[in-house]
Amino acid sequence: MTEVELEGPRAGEVLIEVKATGICHTDDFTLSGADPEGLFPAILGHEGAGIVVDVGPGVTSVKKGDHVIPLYTPECRACPSCLSRKTNLCTAIRATQGQGVMPDGTSRFSIGKDKIHHYMGCSTFANFTVLPEIAVAKVNPDAPFDKICYIGCGVTTGIGAVINTAKVEMGATAVVFGLGGIGLNVIQGLRLAGADMIIGVDLNNDKKVWGEKFGMTHFVNPTEIDGDIVAYLVNMTKRGADQIGGADYTFDCTGNVKVMRQALEASHRGWGKSVVIGVAGAGQEIATRPFQLVTGRQWMGTAFGGARGRTDVPKIVDWYMEGKIEIDPMITHTLPLDDINRGFELMHSGTSIRSVVVY
Amino acid sequence: MTEVELEGPRAGEVLIEVKATGICHTDDFTLSGADPEGLFPAILGHEGAGIVVDVGPGVTSVKKGDHVIPLYTPECRACPSCLSRKTNLCTAIRATQGQGVMPDGTSRFSIGKDKIHHYMGCSTFANFTVLPEIAVAKVNPDAPFDKICYIGCGVTTGIGAVINTAKVEMGATAVVFGLGGIGLNVIQGLRLAGADMIIGVDLNNDKKVWGEKFGMTHFVNPTEIDGDIVAYLVNMTKRGADQIGGADYTFDCTGNVKVMRQALEASHRGWGKSVVIGVAGAGQEIATRPFQLVTGRQWMGTAFGGARGRTDVPKIVDWYMEGKIEIDPMITHTLPLDDINRGFELMHSGTSIRSVVVY
Repeated sequence: MTEVELEGPRAGEVLIEVKATGICHTDDFTLSGADPEGLFPAILGHEGAGIVVDVGPGVTSVKKGDHVIPLYTPECRACPSCLSRKTNLCTAIRATQGQGVMPDGTSRFSIGKDKIHHYMGCSTFANFTVLPEIAVAKVNPDAPFDKICYIGCGVTTGIGAVINTAKVEMGATAVVFGLGGIGLNVIQGLRLAGADMIIGVDLNNDKKVWGEKFGMTHFVNPTEIDGDIVAYLVNMTKRGADQIGGADYTFDCTGNVKVMRQALEASHRGWGKSVVIGVAGAGQEIATRPFQLVTGRQWMGTAFGGARGRTDVPKIVDWYMEGKIEIDPMITHTLPLDDINRGFELMHSGTSIRSVVVY
Repeated sequence: MTEVELEGPRAGEVLIEVKATGICHTDDFTLSGADPEGLFPAILGHEGAGIVVDVGPGVTSVKKGDHVIPLYTPECRACPSCLSRKTNLCTAIRATQGQGVMPDGTSRFSIGKDKIHHYMGCSTFANFTVLPEIAVAKVNPDAPFDKICYIGCGVTTGIGAVINTAKVEMGATAVVFGLGGIGLNVIQGLRLAGADMIIGVDLNNDKKVWGEKFGMTHFVNPTEIDGDIVAYLVNMTKRGADQIGGADYTFDCTGNVKVMRQALEASHRGWGKSVVIGVAGAGQEIATRPFQLVTGRQWMGTAFGGARGRTDVPKIVDWYMEGKIEIDPMITHTLPLDDINRGFELMHSGTSIRSVVVY
């Protein structure tokens, strides 16, 4: 815990009072030093919710008092990517965000003369932060901060992978590898999309009950089956007159490149789509025989669930408020800021699904 | 050259007099012994056109005298794959076709007591052959056999990869790796789809004039540039306010797994689609960093250009007759059956785009 100086918002920026923030594996990855793009010193945290307390000149889309979710994937609605209608990966502030600074090239955080970097454009592990206007989503003010902060990353990533990236249809068959926070949100996304068979795969049998809470219909522990997990899953998903197996959609939520290959190869000949969500270690590669693609499987990935932050995130908050999706059971631990390091410990030990820090 | 016995068509089968057949790299691959699924003795050839001379009991969709193109990818219109509306990879006769026999498990070809295998369900290197009714496409009887035989494989694979698999839209940017027969058909598919920038990549400068004949707008010889081909192509395709490069669509027509990776990585962040068309050597694998997928590139493949044989092939024949696509300039050599081995030599030496044998 330390105090830092925070400069107010400049043109096109907003000052947010952060009310709650989730602790995500990505924060941990950067904190560990393994992230080749990590910059220090920095204020981590990217999964928050809060209130606008001040706006800089020219800001028109939000005002003081608005409830917002910070967006590590902004949505400027003007760059070639936003206008492509094909991707959520807005490029408006990509370069400066990667350098840990605001779009004008400077940081708002400092200690004395030392600059502190922003992190993923958010820095929600501070009770006040500054963001560009295009990187905040205005949401329903009745929604509880300590739950909807999770929509700032994990919920949107998982549900969005199903809806925006894979575009799963009613009656589909799906396999989800890895039943952590992302995997459980993929599962509830599949339930929302009307999938018939939702198979969860995890090495930890304790995850079975978790998957079932959110719509998983079958559970497989790869260490408890005979033989190869791909053949097992293909056999499990055989259906129709020709008895060809394989899931219509598979999702990797592990970050393990071997599992990514299994996910592709467990998808259906002719039309299987396999979505990489997990973040692999630096330098690691995925591989397969090209025959897998030539016979109709598609390998794709997703960042922030393919969601456009300002357009889609408010809708997901509404879905939560309407009871279409669940978040409360996934927030297993709520901690004061002083206990933030315990949140990381709970993640490491596998005790938590999600820990949330409230200010 | 040898004479074989050919039994007439059984139930659901048709007897075809083959009038012309192309010589394709796939025939050469199997002939070489490198194809792990190759069966011998067999009558090779899978890119033909001919006339129905007899039909077996129960055949209703074609009759004696119809002009047809044999289909190594059949279209039964009843199996789960045909009914999925997601793939052209009909499964109705997959198992027996792979075993080199008709759907009833027997071969129609023999020499004395020795069975001769069918090849890819077609065996067009014989002047008569038998096929299942679901594996022939009835086409415009005015179309010349010695040209439309090429629609039985190369033309449809190349054009179909653009239209059915990648679904290229007007104004797109594309890169085609490998300017052989398939690559040239991808290029004319891109022209047909209205692509703006069509970059051809080949090690052989003689291919430049060939690419330009069919719509290529830029040519790159990777051995004549400084540095990495991926960076070169990304730079070449930079456009828009954010100057992010990469092609909207890339196509591998080389069968080289290293090139397949380059094709993926030369596609555009956020939405690039890369289509594997070339057939790799047995056991070879493709690889990349998963970050390429997470940032929005899609890796896919195509077989027979995603075309449904009985539905789409007759349309492509009509496109040829209407002048929407060109075939004549690609058929660089027309040979009598006695010279078929010269057709293979012309392929090996890179002298031909396509050689066609006429009976």
